[in-house]
Amino acid sequence: MCSVIRRTQPVRLALALCLRANCHGSSYALTDIRHFSPGLSTSVSPLRAALRAYCTRMARIEGLLFRQLFDRDSCTYTYLLADTDTKEAVLIDPVLETLGRDVKLIEELGLKLKMGVNTHCHADHVTSTGQMKKQLVDMKSVICVHSGAKADIHVKEGDKISFGRHSLEVRETPGHTDGCMTLVTGDQSMAFTGDALLIRGCGRTDFQQGCSKKLYNSIHGKIFTLPDSCLVYPAHDYRGQTASTVGEERKYNPRLTKTLDEFVDIMKNLNLPKPEKIDIAVPANMVCGVH
Amino acid sequence: MCSVIRRTQPVRLALALCLRANCHGSSYALTDIRHFSPGLSTSVSPLRAALRAYCTRMARIEGLLFRQLFDRDSCTYTYLLADTDTKEAVLIDPVLETLGRDVKLIEELGLKLKMGVNTHCHADHVTSTGQMKKQLVDMKSVICVHSGAKADIHVKEGDKISFGRHSLEVRETPGHTDGCMTLVTGDQSMAFTGDALLIRGCGRTDFQQGCSKKLYNSIHGKIFTLPDSCLVYPAHDYRGQTASTVGEERKYNPRLTKTLDEFVDIMKNLNLPKPEKIDIAVPANMVCGVH
Repeated sequence: MCSVIRRTQPVRLALALCLRANCHGSSYALTDIRHFSPGLSTSVSPLRAALRAYCTRMARIEGLLFRQLFDRDSCTYTYLLADTDTKEAVLIDPVLETLGRDVKLIEELGLKLKMGVNTHCHADHVTSTGQMKKQLVDMKSVICVHSGAKADIHVKEGDKISFGRHSLEVRETPGHTDGCMTLVTGDQSMAFTGDALLIRGCGRTDFQQGCSKKLYNSIHGKIFTLPDSCLVYPAHDYRGQTASTVGEERKYNPRLTKTLDEFVDIMKNLNLPKPEKIDIAVPANMVCGVH
Repeated sequence: MCSVIRRTQPVRLALALCLRANCHGSSYALTDIRHFSPGLSTSVSPLRAALRAYCTRMARIEGLLFRQLFDRDSCTYTYLLADTDTKEAVLIDPVLETLGRDVKLIEELGLKLKMGVNTHCHADHVTSTGQMKKQLVDMKSVICVHSGAKADIHVKEGDKISFGRHSLEVRETPGHTDGCMTLVTGDQSMAFTGDALLIRGCGRTDFQQGCSKKLYNSIHGKIFTLPDSCLVYPAHDYRGQTASTVGEERKYNPRLTKTLDEFVDIMKNLNLPKPEKIDIAVPANMVCGVH
């Protein structure tokens, strides 16, 4: 893509650079572009689309603080996102055992945590959202309306979780549980896929409201329709992989590259042990981890 | 920074956007800028400096593939960096136990691994560089000349480790061992600090050629002189933190914020157990992990 831009003529280059600024999240409008070339009336759609693809590949949003955190026991990833100007922040899938670490980091970075979001009602660990609210009093807990769990805010398909100038789009991706959701940044450069899509894997479907067919359709319909360059940040990884992309998973995921019937068959025969903490975690997570 | 640019006049905006493109690593030169405004003869230094600061804060380099990987047993981070166009890649601190995962990923991503670099002769795990060379035959092993270890390429202060259009600058940061080095991207947006600077910690100094005074001076002289926004990627983290910044560590590192004398005293009294694998790992790592 880059080499294409380099070969364009000056006005086109100016246009391209302005659009690049725009898709990084700043507010250059077409009026700005016309400063370079008054009366310019080109159709910008193809260039905008191309530049958008380029920008999403970079997957770095202007003014977004991003930090990935890991709980080594449950192999859970927690994600901290914040607006670097307003300091408003969102924490995705925080774990009870790492509460102290996470609160300390939020305080050191001078952030105002608006929301603690659970991508679903976890079965393998207890969420820290309930306990965290006691320490960070402006924080609200968030979960999908279809989870059946209590929270301050219930979200559904198409809702936007906003923090400063940024937001996360809610895409319902049931199948691991009924209330699973994937959160996508405004520029579609990052997707927080919870336990729906994992790196070279996916969430199991043999407990809670698990349904392999639903999961397959959720991933193909709501995640694999994102740009190939979109970074995939799952709720877990057990092999030390921190991120993937939609393109990689579409090509190399050993389960999701199969047909629906083959996928259902694979999921039926995983024979996984029952999660150790399920009897504690699920009831606790129905009430933000606070018994 | 962004709002400042927005208020500039058209030519300045063009200039700013070109410089932004430039500091993201693409090859727009000042000749490109002059297409917008022939005869432009402004001094670009202040704008370039400001844009550079902005870009490093974003810490995403155009055309750079970056992947962080984790070994859960030794809590080692391995880093894969590649040029997205030429596909030339460098792997930093790969671990023997994750050899299969790493080779598979490199192959899936279609990369040509040029170099496997060890930031030092590790005491807690065996490097995979020797074994990896048997599978990826064009790969060379790299280590600092002061490590005393064998490798295909020995590097020293100021050397550049190049892959495609990108490179890593070698900064010698002894103290944990004599041969420790920190690798810094060309735009100083990312530093791979090995076992010198860890997140809110640092490497121990009580074995191999450990020297607290050297380590303190290395970190203050070679890492804390980088921009505050520079992301810190260490060789290990034991608390699930994946990255920090130079600014954060300058402000919150509980050891490095102390005076030299206090630091030496802290390091003298850590009373850490001997690393389990040291008697196997150090002799193995003197020869790329291949006995």
